[in-house]
Amino acid sequence: MKTSSLVKVTKAEKSKIDQVDFDNLVFGKTFTDHMFVCDFKDGQWQTPEILPYQPLTLDPSAKVFHYGQAVFEGMKAYKDTDGKVWLFRPEENYERINKSSARLQMPEFPRDFFFEGLEQLLNLDKEWIKSGQADGNALYIRPFVIASQPGVMASPSTEYKFIIICSPVQAYYTKDVKVKIADYYSRAANGGFGAAKAAGNYAGQFYPTRLVQEEGFDQVIWTDDTTHEYLEEAGTMNIFFRINDTLVTCPTSDRILDGVTRKSVIAMAEKLGITVEVRKVTVKEITEAAANGTLKESFGSGTAAVISPIGTIAYKDQVWDLEKPENCYSATIKKAILDVQYNAAEDTFGWRHEVK
Amino acid sequence: MKTSSLVKVTKAEKSKIDQVDFDNLVFGKTFTDHMFVCDFKDGQWQTPEILPYQPLTLDPSAKVFHYGQAVFEGMKAYKDTDGKVWLFRPEENYERINKSSARLQMPEFPRDFFFEGLEQLLNLDKEWIKSGQADGNALYIRPFVIASQPGVMASPSTEYKFIIICSPVQAYYTKDVKVKIADYYSRAANGGFGAAKAAGNYAGQFYPTRLVQEEGFDQVIWTDDTTHEYLEEAGTMNIFFRINDTLVTCPTSDRILDGVTRKSVIAMAEKLGITVEVRKVTVKEITEAAANGTLKESFGSGTAAVISPIGTIAYKDQVWDLEKPENCYSATIKKAILDVQYNAAEDTFGWRHEVK
Repeated sequence: MKTSSLVKVTKAEKSKIDQVDFDNLVFGKTFTDHMFVCDFKDGQWQTPEILPYQPLTLDPSAKVFHYGQAVFEGMKAYKDTDGKVWLFRPEENYERINKSSARLQMPEFPRDFFFEGLEQLLNLDKEWIKSGQADGNALYIRPFVIASQPGVMASPSTEYKFIIICSPVQAYYTKDVKVKIADYYSRAANGGFGAAKAAGNYAGQFYPTRLVQEEGFDQVIWTDDTTHEYLEEAGTMNIFFRINDTLVTCPTSDRILDGVTRKSVIAMAEKLGITVEVRKVTVKEITEAAANGTLKESFGSGTAAVISPIGTIAYKDQVWDLEKPENCYSATIKKAILDVQYNAAEDTFGWRHEVK
Repeated sequence: MKTSSLVKVTKAEKSKIDQVDFDNLVFGKTFTDHMFVCDFKDGQWQTPEILPYQPLTLDPSAKVFHYGQAVFEGMKAYKDTDGKVWLFRPEENYERINKSSARLQMPEFPRDFFFEGLEQLLNLDKEWIKSGQADGNALYIRPFVIASQPGVMASPSTEYKFIIICSPVQAYYTKDVKVKIADYYSRAANGGFGAAKAAGNYAGQFYPTRLVQEEGFDQVIWTDDTTHEYLEEAGTMNIFFRINDTLVTCPTSDRILDGVTRKSVIAMAEKLGITVEVRKVTVKEITEAAANGTLKESFGSGTAAVISPIGTIAYKDQVWDLEKPENCYSATIKKAILDVQYNAAEDTFGWRHEVK
């Protein structure tokens, strides 16, 4: 285990790990013994600390509650069969949280604080990371930044908290996802902050999602807010379509999250010899392909599930169920990425990062 | 003072009021002795309480920090020269916070809890409300709702806190505002939640605002995100333009906040005999009117300042300074509304609500 002079560590007196049933975890409900916290004030990030997991105390006027300056990341740590712990492309998450922060006029977080803090935290709580690729055992890592300055004036906060909390998880989705394509509500504006992993991009999705849930679907596939003719993302997942034998996904933009899993799926698919097209995808072509049988597969990509196969796509009054083809791209690509994540295959891309 | 069986009251042991310099208040920095808090859990709002003003304690995984379920209102209480305390159209704020909550899949708050809680709170802290219309003395009231359930899964919270905090304030803006019309960044999407008074609508504005501040302006006037050809609002204010002798403002939509002050300005202007047009307003017509001198005035409307005259409008490389005309609409309308708010004029609209 590395020691760090950067991070001040206060260990929990007693671990909670014995109280946890690792075979029956609910996603995102259970947290490890420690958390990483670093405060920004007086124009700079203060000494980072690892503390026993504990509640935050904030003034009721803290800006995060009123003006929504809050960004986050989702990452996972994986334990291989030798007990070694691995992160997957953590540099991408580090860079993205700073991009998200910049778009919300929040200060960037220093690289050494992020990586030393994260690795120290994972070392302290490594017993919480269970091996078991088949069950999807992993430690979900949630770095986030919130505006903590008191005061109800609508201006950027002068104080922030950068925090990392960790939650042991198992495979996220079990069933194929049923999605409905948006034709009225939208997730993001042109020139807005849809590309940022910002808290404000999620709350607005819940009501439209609830409407499709009442019709029997799980999630909304968002479309552009101007014409609703172009498919964008699913809110917590980027989306892919297999038309005949070509995998198609839309390009990222200021409305669409630049997903780490998305770009890993593209790279892995190409390595596996699959033709990938990154281009605008119209509702018309996908619904026509669904109707004429050339839409062979569709799936979402994200950190929580890697790949979530989509079993049903709906648009207005039409509903199409997708049969799984024999040479299923989603299963092949998911397995190949998981094998890299769990150190069960060669890492030709240099994606793995060992936590020592 | 009314007594209420609905609200459980715990008084502060000692008032902080002696520490406050009421002649040198910074907007939104100072809070009164008490706060109103009501928790939502197990599917219902629990007993509302008034407590000494104090920090909130929330789990670091509380959903407000991650998924942005947070809405608020801005209101003011005014003290007249007889010491009576008045609210201005509080029913509008009550209805709007519930509309905002509904759009973010948050539970509506009961009417009797809202009004009894608010009036009890204002009674307890009424010494904090200073008379003085000339100085803009008032108590700014901030009701807000946040998602408090622990857990990092992207779904609506099952627990919330409805809170009211109060801050003594004076007149908000002193100088005329310099604004620049947006031609790239946007505030809200079609089918999004721009009409909700939601935390997530503010954080995204700070970075584009900072960019125009670096050019010497104060605020951005937002345009539609599709074409940037239509003027919408200023983010914390609705906007009005006086072209020759007609007052023009754009209609509300799912992208634009339905401002209480905006609708009061429209009603008051009409009562004063001013022609008001509520219609789409193009960037082209306003910049042309600014160039040819027919744009006589422009101002923003909002709770904090009532009316903020705009002294400078810019679009791309062009900048126009607006001279105040002799029969200044903004000053006349502002005075007429303030007179109603401070009980210095007859309330023909029934806007005032006395706090007894």
